[in-house]
Amino acid sequence: MGDFVFNFEMEVRDYECDLQGVVNNSVYQNYLEHTRHKYIKSIGIDFAELSEKGINLMVKRVEIDFQSPLRSGDRFVSKLRMERISPLRFGFIQHIYRLPDNKLMIKALVIGTSINKRGRPELPRELIEVWGLE
Amino acid sequence: MGDFVFNFEMEVRDYECDLQGVVNNSVYQNYLEHTRHKYIKSIGIDFAELSEKGINLMVKRVEIDFQSPLRSGDRFVSKLRMERISPLRFGFIQHIYRLPDNKLMIKALVIGTSINKRGRPELPRELIEVWGLE
Amino acid sequence: MGDFVFNFEMEVRDYECDLQGVVNNSVYQNYLEHTRHKYIKSIGIDFAELSEKGINLMVKRVEIDFQSPLRSGDRFVSKLRMERISPLRFGFIQHIYRLPDNKLMIKALVIGTSINKRGRPELPRELIEVWGLE
Amino acid sequence: MGDFVFNFEMEVRDYECDLQGVVNNSVYQNYLEHTRHKYIKSIGIDFAELSEKGINLMVKRVEIDFQSPLRSGDRFVSKLRMERISPLRFGFIQHIYRLPDNKLMIKALVIGTSINKRGRPELPRELIEVWGLE
Repeated sequence: MGDFVFNFEMEVRDYECDLQGVVNNSVYQNYLEHTRHKYIKSIGIDFAELSEKGINLMVKRVEIDFQSPLRSGDRFVSKLRMERISPLRFGFIQHIYRLPDNKLMIKALVIGTSINKRGRPELPRELIEVWGLE
Repeated sequence: MGDFVFNFEMEVRDYECDLQGVVNNSVYQNYLEHTRHKYIKSIGIDFAELSEKGINLMVKRVEIDFQSPLRSGDRFVSKLRMERISPLRFGFIQHIYRLPDNKLMIKALVIGTSINKRGRPELPRELIEVWGLE
Repeated sequence: MGDFVFNFEMEVRDYECDLQGVVNNSVYQNYLEHTRHKYIKSIGIDFAELSEKGINLMVKRVEIDFQSPLRSGDRFVSKLRMERISPLRFGFIQHIYRLPDNKLMIKALVIGTSINKRGRPELPRELIEVWGLE
Repeated sequence: MGDFVFNFEMEVRDYECDLQGVVNNSVYQNYLEHTRHKYIKSIGIDFAELSEKGINLMVKRVEIDFQSPLRSGDRFVSKLRMERISPLRFGFIQHIYRLPDNKLMIKALVIGTSINKRGRPELPRELIEVWGLE
């Protein structure tokens, strides 16, 4: 799995844990979203600019496999790579590994699309190029 | 304490509870905010309309006394009344009582102001009247 | 889709909405979890009791299709039915419909399992019976 | 204000921002709590150990002044110092400054107490010493 293009380290905060003493399931979506936004910024895509051109990125589907739960104080690295799903949909493959033992905790596929000014799905050339989706 | 002007019932959800098995402290601000927004809507104040006129309501200060913690599955009633703090600031007195025993769990004072188009505090006549703040 | 066995009504709260003016994706998992817990309680399953017997219910996989976004103030009904996935895994089919127009906003499949005292997957007879999973 | 004893840097995540495009008020309590827990850990206090001895730390009161709102992507430093409030209550003075301009965004006083096995407030010698509260 050496082909991830983006890594981001975080740490579990106590308020993210629930009655069972582990990170609440919904919080992983926060981690995954934050990772995607950091990644998108890192490759120079500016949401505000895209919006002005009338392009809106949105999530259409999420699949998450919960392998093992993160706990209070755990550090982890969130990894990401892109995958073309269809001409109009792109996928973020996202894994979360606990540190320092690199145990896989979460595997996710997040499928997005982009909508143009007329509300129709449209992947701008710009995104296709930067993501290397042929 | 019969002088509250607005009551709203809610129920604790499990994802709002933390490692200690009680509602996390920050979640009470969610409850209090939701109560204020429901109240404001109930008296016919339209945020969007106010915004168009260039009026923005914002919270300047919060004081919360945690009397006793809410737990998983608890039902509660969130109560509110207004208080004029200064010519430019208004207060929401907010209490949360557990049901059905009406035990006081939270006492809060939330101080807001409203900002006009020029970024200056300004309480519109409209708000003063509806809130009965002289 | 008349075969849902549990319906629960909720309302979007402003603090659940994000920069885009819609309910943040992660919040739907909160809605779905709360619905499952209310359902489980409604059929008389007691988490505490199960835990004492050494049974832990846990989510292994989530699939969510985001059809259309909920917005500030929207009311919605969250619906659920059970499906046997494998001898050791059960599925919650969960839909969220906006009210009053009953537009489908979210479709989800949440797959759970239960773990016995020895950390092994084991579906207790009790759960199989109450869920009608043959 | 050079007398803070603990500094912790964080960054605003998009899911923490609300409809108004700024960090939601309740999220600051998450930031403040996380800072306190990191601080307490840094001085070698072990919650689990305290619990075994029958000591529970809890928040009794929060006062937050919202000076200016944090926005998407803002980095900030969260600072903390201790203050003795009464023989049985201790205060955390907490400020949040935006980076890199060090603008003060939040001022808070969080008052805690500790409860012994009999449910009575009791500050253990251990806490008094480590916090330098006479």
